[in-house]
Amino acid sequence: MVDLDAYRKATLGNSSGWGRRPALLVVDFTNGFNDPEKFGGGNIGPAIGRTVDLLAAARRLGLPVAFTRVVYADDGADAGIFCLKAPALRSLTENNPDSHVVPELAPAPGEYVVRKQMPSAFFGTGLHSWLTYKGVDTILHTGCTTSGCVRASVIDGLSHNYRNIVVTDCVGDRALEPHEANLFDMEQKYADLVTCDKAIGALEQIQGKTRAAE
Amino acid sequence: MVDLDAYRKATLGNSSGWGRRPALLVVDFTNGFNDPEKFGGGNIGPAIGRTVDLLAAARRLGLPVAFTRVVYADDGADAGIFCLKAPALRSLTENNPDSHVVPELAPAPGEYVVRKQMPSAFFGTGLHSWLTYKGVDTILHTGCTTSGCVRASVIDGLSHNYRNIVVTDCVGDRALEPHEANLFDMEQKYADLVTCDKAIGALEQIQGKTRAAE
Amino acid sequence: MVDLDAYRKATLGNSSGWGRRPALLVVDFTNGFNDPEKFGGGNIGPAIGRTVDLLAAARRLGLPVAFTRVVYADDGADAGIFCLKAPALRSLTENNPDSHVVPELAPAPGEYVVRKQMPSAFFGTGLHSWLTYKGVDTILHTGCTTSGCVRASVIDGLSHNYRNIVVTDCVGDRALEPHEANLFDMEQKYADLVTCDKAIGALEQIQGKTRAAE
Amino acid sequence: MVDLDAYRKATLGNSSGWGRRPALLVVDFTNGFNDPEKFGGGNIGPAIGRTVDLLAAARRLGLPVAFTRVVYADDGADAGIFCLKAPALRSLTENNPDSHVVPELAPAPGEYVVRKQMPSAFFGTGLHSWLTYKGVDTILHTGCTTSGCVRASVIDGLSHNYRNIVVTDCVGDRALEPHEANLFDMEQKYADLVTCDKAIGALEQIQGKTRAAE
Repeated sequence: MVDLDAYRKATLGNSSGWGRRPALLVVDFTNGFNDPEKFGGGNIGPAIGRTVDLLAAARRLGLPVAFTRVVYADDGADAGIFCLKAPALRSLTENNPDSHVVPELAPAPGEYVVRKQMPSAFFGTGLHSWLTYKGVDTILHTGCTTSGCVRASVIDGLSHNYRNIVVTDCVGDRALEPHEANLFDMEQKYADLVTCDKAIGALEQIQGKTRAAE
Repeated sequence: MVDLDAYRKATLGNSSGWGRRPALLVVDFTNGFNDPEKFGGGNIGPAIGRTVDLLAAARRLGLPVAFTRVVYADDGADAGIFCLKAPALRSLTENNPDSHVVPELAPAPGEYVVRKQMPSAFFGTGLHSWLTYKGVDTILHTGCTTSGCVRASVIDGLSHNYRNIVVTDCVGDRALEPHEANLFDMEQKYADLVTCDKAIGALEQIQGKTRAAE
Repeated sequence: MVDLDAYRKATLGNSSGWGRRPALLVVDFTNGFNDPEKFGGGNIGPAIGRTVDLLAAARRLGLPVAFTRVVYADDGADAGIFCLKAPALRSLTENNPDSHVVPELAPAPGEYVVRKQMPSAFFGTGLHSWLTYKGVDTILHTGCTTSGCVRASVIDGLSHNYRNIVVTDCVGDRALEPHEANLFDMEQKYADLVTCDKAIGALEQIQGKTRAAE
Repeated sequence: MVDLDAYRKATLGNSSGWGRRPALLVVDFTNGFNDPEKFGGGNIGPAIGRTVDLLAAARRLGLPVAFTRVVYADDGADAGIFCLKAPALRSLTENNPDSHVVPELAPAPGEYVVRKQMPSAFFGTGLHSWLTYKGVDTILHTGCTTSGCVRASVIDGLSHNYRNIVVTDCVGDRALEPHEANLFDMEQKYADLVTCDKAIGALEQIQGKTRAAE
């Protein structure tokens, strides 16, 4: 356990709360990251299972929904340093099923599918512009891996001044220690943590208030 | 210890190596982060001590050098979500000594001092443009905290396609578990890890080659 | 006059309209750009005069207000290609009065002052994050020069998915032909054009609707 | 003719020159922009013709080459404000031939094809990261339209600290007045202007020096 004394002196670990216009972000829940023989393993499978429920609620409540896929050019023309660290990333081309969102979370028409080459869902993509267009102020973060692309997206979510909610049982990683360590870091610095059930409850409350105000 | 089997299947943990034009980045080694009663603690002090040596070598070898400081407007007009998570950040105004680089690492004329409000040295700053102007292809990452602004800067360094070298004894954190956990994550995904002594040796080699080629 | 036939075939020149949460952006109305012997001239002076009225209305109606200043480091460490094209830019350091907002538009507490080195108010700054934090969906563009930093900020405003309103008598340039040519380009592609009087009328209407809804 | 007196006082119009590692950028020379009944017209056709020669030279000399295409999602999920200003943009989906690079400039394997939704080739894309990976310091700008996506890309090229060369007979626009007005603006502020023939000559010189140094 980390000694929290220094964190308290630095005033870390406060809640940034919820805003009024949440969106759901589903990071890299693709076939390749759901396969323990490729990019997956650990608790990614169960996290996908819970995200099915959260996605259903988000759709019912009319939230903007965005997905990310890692997609590199067929000829590898856009492969860079990340592909030196993890060469198998280059295999994730447009038509490779490993780069496609898992069938149980298949994007619906009007939902935004972000193709990215880097860890963060924001980097080199239109995500911030899209969130601006939708008037979003709060991001529910789901996906994998907790210690990789989720963490990177949460940092950028904070930097872009969104209220960030990490849904703890809707994010997964190929190993549990990094999963836990990154949840700790994110809660102290960048995001609030909630379970899927609590997230759905909070969404219903926000939706109720919004309807009452209209 | 993390079971590395899933990491190997995902082809993670490879080296991205050194390029030919390194720069030194010193993140948030400021008085406030060197004070265990404010933002500091843990192994930040010793990391500053070792960075004194690395900075001297970088200057001797003519490397571009950049520093970051967290600086908010005197009236807090630019405070956002990060200041909800950690309200004390707002105190770091231009003239607050806590926001100034520690005296033993004081920037020299021509070295670039980045004022930032967010974790990453790149976010909302001119750092990438400056590195482009200097023709840099490799970043030596030093500073604090390992699990905060260093990690965020390393992710962005990767995303911008720099070769990232984290100098393990020149980065520090207010607690050791997050320090270690983030070194692990960064080595697997985003950066190579070296000690200060090895970094100085590598810089001297690169400098030798560059001189021989001219 | 440009033949608009090709513009119509490309479906250009439509209105993107107003949203519900406007902000006022005042670009580079600083002493140096108000001085015809330095960076100014043309119709910049009268544009400042009209912006005094628009700023008063914006404050009365409670709009978020942001200003930009060009500010380079005292030692020129952050000077790049732009300073090769226009070397006098380097003189615009923090304490040079030329870099300060003109007294008749002096920023009030809580208004956001963006220091920038590049043409766009967005580039290498926290502006998009700040607008996100404020929940803004519409930007009123004022400032100088129409063919320089205003145009660059309008392009980025569009790219970030804001509704862009260029207030035609609140933007100015050192020469009238580029002023007119850039108003034409912006109206066709990126922004709606309105006069200051019409902008104030529209703001009052939006404010009325917002109050009625609350 | 613009009176250049104010431009001289502002020290505008200087040359930023060539660096040592140029790349060729070809913006939006796609079938839809080569069709006067759709997005094209004016001098775009002849500009494509001259770019065929420049591209051949760039390939012969081993330059990194990047192309842009405007590509929106099939269901329009990523359409925003730009599509309010110009609704026909939404038709430019992945498989619409209008969004494909013209056959005479077809990208070769290893050349980078940027899909973009906004004016600038840099915005929401991996272009800056790719140029960093290639070690580029100079961009040769070609494409269309001069007053639209070329101008936007040149501003961003400057902001990212590249030396920008606009190849005057390799950029085109649907109307000549905006073409000329934007060449003027870009030369004063952001880029050097050269003809295709001069550009090829300069590239050959740079290549000769690079070979001699190796």
